[in-house]
Amino acid sequence: MNPLKKIPVIIDCDPGIDDVMMLLLAFSSEDLDIKLITTEPGNQTQNKTIYNARAFTSYMKQDIEIARGLDEPFFRVLEVAAEVHGESGLGDVILPEPTLPESNRTAIDAMKDVLLRSEEEIVLIATGPLTNIGALFLAHPEVKKKIKYISYMGGAAIGGNMTPTSEFNVYVDPHAAEIVFRSGVPIVMSGLDVTHKAYITLDEIAEIEVTGTELAQNICSLLKFYIHNTKRTAFHEEHFERVIRLHDLCAVSYVITPELFDGDDCHVEVELEGRLTAGTTVVDYTQRTGLPQNVKVLHTVKREEFVQQFFAAIKKMDHYNKGEKRDET
Amino acid sequence: MNPLKKIPVIIDCDPGIDDVMMLLLAFSSEDLDIKLITTEPGNQTQNKTIYNARAFTSYMKQDIEIARGLDEPFFRVLEVAAEVHGESGLGDVILPEPTLPESNRTAIDAMKDVLLRSEEEIVLIATGPLTNIGALFLAHPEVKKKIKYISYMGGAAIGGNMTPTSEFNVYVDPHAAEIVFRSGVPIVMSGLDVTHKAYITLDEIAEIEVTGTELAQNICSLLKFYIHNTKRTAFHEEHFERVIRLHDLCAVSYVITPELFDGDDCHVEVELEGRLTAGTTVVDYTQRTGLPQNVKVLHTVKREEFVQQFFAAIKKMDHYNKGEKRDET
Amino acid sequence: MNPLKKIPVIIDCDPGIDDVMMLLLAFSSEDLDIKLITTEPGNQTQNKTIYNARAFTSYMKQDIEIARGLDEPFFRVLEVAAEVHGESGLGDVILPEPTLPESNRTAIDAMKDVLLRSEEEIVLIATGPLTNIGALFLAHPEVKKKIKYISYMGGAAIGGNMTPTSEFNVYVDPHAAEIVFRSGVPIVMSGLDVTHKAYITLDEIAEIEVTGTELAQNICSLLKFYIHNTKRTAFHEEHFERVIRLHDLCAVSYVITPELFDGDDCHVEVELEGRLTAGTTVVDYTQRTGLPQNVKVLHTVKREEFVQQFFAAIKKMDHYNKGEKRDET
Amino acid sequence: MNPLKKIPVIIDCDPGIDDVMMLLLAFSSEDLDIKLITTEPGNQTQNKTIYNARAFTSYMKQDIEIARGLDEPFFRVLEVAAEVHGESGLGDVILPEPTLPESNRTAIDAMKDVLLRSEEEIVLIATGPLTNIGALFLAHPEVKKKIKYISYMGGAAIGGNMTPTSEFNVYVDPHAAEIVFRSGVPIVMSGLDVTHKAYITLDEIAEIEVTGTELAQNICSLLKFYIHNTKRTAFHEEHFERVIRLHDLCAVSYVITPELFDGDDCHVEVELEGRLTAGTTVVDYTQRTGLPQNVKVLHTVKREEFVQQFFAAIKKMDHYNKGEKRDET
Repeated sequence: MNPLKKIPVIIDCDPGIDDVMMLLLAFSSEDLDIKLITTEPGNQTQNKTIYNARAFTSYMKQDIEIARGLDEPFFRVLEVAAEVHGESGLGDVILPEPTLPESNRTAIDAMKDVLLRSEEEIVLIATGPLTNIGALFLAHPEVKKKIKYISYMGGAAIGGNMTPTSEFNVYVDPHAAEIVFRSGVPIVMSGLDVTHKAYITLDEIAEIEVTGTELAQNICSLLKFYIHNTKRTAFHEEHFERVIRLHDLCAVSYVITPELFDGDDCHVEVELEGRLTAGTTVVDYTQRTGLPQNVKVLHTVKREEFVQQFFAAIKKMDHYNKGEKRDET
Repeated sequence: MNPLKKIPVIIDCDPGIDDVMMLLLAFSSEDLDIKLITTEPGNQTQNKTIYNARAFTSYMKQDIEIARGLDEPFFRVLEVAAEVHGESGLGDVILPEPTLPESNRTAIDAMKDVLLRSEEEIVLIATGPLTNIGALFLAHPEVKKKIKYISYMGGAAIGGNMTPTSEFNVYVDPHAAEIVFRSGVPIVMSGLDVTHKAYITLDEIAEIEVTGTELAQNICSLLKFYIHNTKRTAFHEEHFERVIRLHDLCAVSYVITPELFDGDDCHVEVELEGRLTAGTTVVDYTQRTGLPQNVKVLHTVKREEFVQQFFAAIKKMDHYNKGEKRDET
Repeated sequence: MNPLKKIPVIIDCDPGIDDVMMLLLAFSSEDLDIKLITTEPGNQTQNKTIYNARAFTSYMKQDIEIARGLDEPFFRVLEVAAEVHGESGLGDVILPEPTLPESNRTAIDAMKDVLLRSEEEIVLIATGPLTNIGALFLAHPEVKKKIKYISYMGGAAIGGNMTPTSEFNVYVDPHAAEIVFRSGVPIVMSGLDVTHKAYITLDEIAEIEVTGTELAQNICSLLKFYIHNTKRTAFHEEHFERVIRLHDLCAVSYVITPELFDGDDCHVEVELEGRLTAGTTVVDYTQRTGLPQNVKVLHTVKREEFVQQFFAAIKKMDHYNKGEKRDET
Repeated sequence: MNPLKKIPVIIDCDPGIDDVMMLLLAFSSEDLDIKLITTEPGNQTQNKTIYNARAFTSYMKQDIEIARGLDEPFFRVLEVAAEVHGESGLGDVILPEPTLPESNRTAIDAMKDVLLRSEEEIVLIATGPLTNIGALFLAHPEVKKKIKYISYMGGAAIGGNMTPTSEFNVYVDPHAAEIVFRSGVPIVMSGLDVTHKAYITLDEIAEIEVTGTELAQNICSLLKFYIHNTKRTAFHEEHFERVIRLHDLCAVSYVITPELFDGDDCHVEVELEGRLTAGTTVVDYTQRTGLPQNVKVLHTVKREEFVQQFFAAIKKMDHYNKGEKRDET
């Protein structure tokens, strides 16, 4: 990559503990030019996710527009993941009051404007349900040609974490997800197939914790809150209760370092109607349907390098957080 | 109604033969201030419906912005009604080339802008599938508070015209319709329950035809093309093959003269998932569900007055068409 | 009809107040040869419906085999109509302990045996969910050729009494109903379309009541319990709260006196999958689908004659009940 | 196991190439007492599967009742697997005309009778769609208490072979399968999870082939026909085109030698309604639903021992086939 040339991105998220880790990695990266952050309901309600996005972005001393997205999934009644992310969405950690204001534009208006005005294609990083992007694509299909690809955390080829077959983000708003999957915009899907391999161990967390800085302690506090909710995800999975999966982090890591990941191009659709399976990403990884391969489904990550990338981000943002300006690092 | 005060309206349509009758009535009315016409696929494709809207509006010497809507239903593959409205959408009638241009704004952008800038509440008249309005409501829910109500031709409490239980407009895009029905915006539904009573007879058509003007002849030509497709719609319906139902006309007529119609407030939802019933408006007209009455379902029309209103519109627009300006009538 | 030749019938029911009226009419008829009564869950549970069948048949001094059917619908969780038929299934009326035993054969075994051994075709009269007959047809399709037709109370072309579109019997077990509707056996459907016209008024009930016999009083007590649950069923229905619909009675009355009824041959299927419409009989009464007309859908009844038939049955069974043998009347 | 005590079994199958291998293993086993074979449509139509069952059983000189099952799935239109099993259901192999007659009882009648008369619990071995057993359970639930367990080849926890998520047998008749899965009868499911590991290689086939007997040659001919249809079934599966999965064999092998298999107890339901996922066995292998564990889902097999068991069966039946009586071996 041309070291002088940053990748312009928009981040659509629902912080959420692992969303915060994802933002931290994004903020730390020299390679990204974050044009906009938009929020949506998912891990918690819209009011909480935008508050958390503003609070963490302020805490990290970033100056980025943060715009409020939609309040509800297309058709489903909103189900949040309070039992995983806590009542606030950020476990037991209390961040300082945000200094960054909420944008006076809606998320849809801001995304549309940033995309249509951009001279180069933008990468969308999405780590929540796809409600905002789905509505944007329905109402303003003209933006699609300005998107290079969507790096999405969500879905699963094999096994769910919400129902036996459905991953949380897609389950929350399957209709929005299906609009995005059939949009024609290229998608790189960090589903549970890869994010379950993108874990950090308790021993590794202990390494961060000993650095003793406030940021490191907050990160570790969040991760330890999160671990209590880890569940087995396959027939034979050992030591699963001693690891924390950094799901959302994959979506940013792929944009910065795609060489850490491996995946296959597949046809993917979302089941909208099943009594047991609504919200399932049906991944045709053996090419039975003969339908077009609209999604790159990641299934492998170089875990140690991925964890080192995360550790480096924490260290960097820790210094930065202590008063140095990002541009000066 | 204050005779000096016009009702501001936006018309979303898919011309289509009865859409053209509807536009004619709208153009003829002193009571309406038509802010915008938007088009969508339904009776024919988007390219054909916007052409027909421009051609008929030009032919009627109206100067109104006409904006292009979306190309496809939310999820379903588009089914058009070529066997009812003809390959062009306007039967055998060939109108002069349109002089009115297509707006340089999309239908969604134009609707959003007109609504948000308006100081008074606007009535939406919708006579096609609700794809445009559904997408607008999903992406820009802030417009809803600027809408007085939607006068909608579509749906049916009893019996369908596409499947045994589904009316065409809702069948084409049930998901968009359901977004609108659950939006909280008041809806007056001219479904088949009332539009099947809003007919004109062959004898009545003959009355118009003898006036001999070009407009009258075109109207009669359109209506006679349309009659070939009329089908029985209930167990015991006599003489059905000698009448033409002016479905879309009801949506405008109600806005001008609500006193011609009678209906009941009901809870209405759209079935999205049935194998046989997807696209059915499930109307709880006996209040079994106990759910909120979100729609006024029309079921009765004073037919003779309705037909006279239509005849008067033809006569008026005929004179107008011959060179007089609308403002001067 | 040959006056010497009785029609052999099997009655499958879920008593239930109107089932009891139906049985009374069947017992009173010179034209029927009742080979078997089978019971199933619906208005109440299997334990209660077989008890009620045995109690009423004993009370009427009939000697007929009564066999226990299945306990549960194919897939759905059983919903009974206790709020309509009371906790016992027979309102406030307490009949004497039954003297007739329960058959030592299951309903399925008994139906199969009666049908296969019969030298002539048998009419099935069914007034509950179709769970028993559906299971019989699935497991033993060879019986179908022995059935002349099924006279069925259930379904509706227009409007439901359980949901806006579903009638109770079909709603309880739509899968069983669909097996029967697609079986190829001719069906005469007394749905709500006709049974809502097959009512008795409060004034008419008063006529019976003054006869003062015990049977008449029990019948009137049952009917008055039942009336409290009558609801409006269409947009414009007057005096609905002063009438009682004798739904199940139609299924027997049609077999004895088909000339009292009028109907149309239609294609009928049961919606199995809709979120709002599962359990709806989709009646193609305008022949849109072009599919075979597998059901005669009744929509009209000569009400006064129907009521007189019912009154005559009560009088006849009253005498009979007082000690005379049926064969001697 | 008491070596003197045989396990009484009923085999319900749809031969089909791998059904024939399964029958061969069953016939060869000293441990099984085969009470009945029933057939159903699946790999081919009912007429072909019963012919193949009779032909192969005759060819193996077995004297077992073979009864004809149902002709059609509960609701779905029958789809057969002619492209896998050939037009006859047995590839290119032509067996001698069967000497065994078709039973004069239906499969349902025969299964019911065998079960109800048995003094000990019987194991059902099922290797086709579950149409017969589903209908039996619906109509005659009293048989369930006579069944020890069902050893079933069908379904999949992860990945399908008919659609991305559905295995063929369950896909063909999901409603019948769901009746069986929710019946309360214990089920051991040899789904694709284990049957994809129960393969034989081309090199191993060559070992059989060199023995040169007629039976061995026929078996090898069947297996080589079958291999042409093998497809990849997971993201990273190597050499898949050089192996043949002996799906149905697992269902018999488990009954004889359960120690060759490993599995987990799980809650399993069949999706009946999805647009993309109907016919999927939804296996809750991580116990998210909290629902009862109604099925032992096999996922591991000791492949070499499984193949040796199959080879031994071929050898044994080869001798037996040459004139020795089974009882004398």
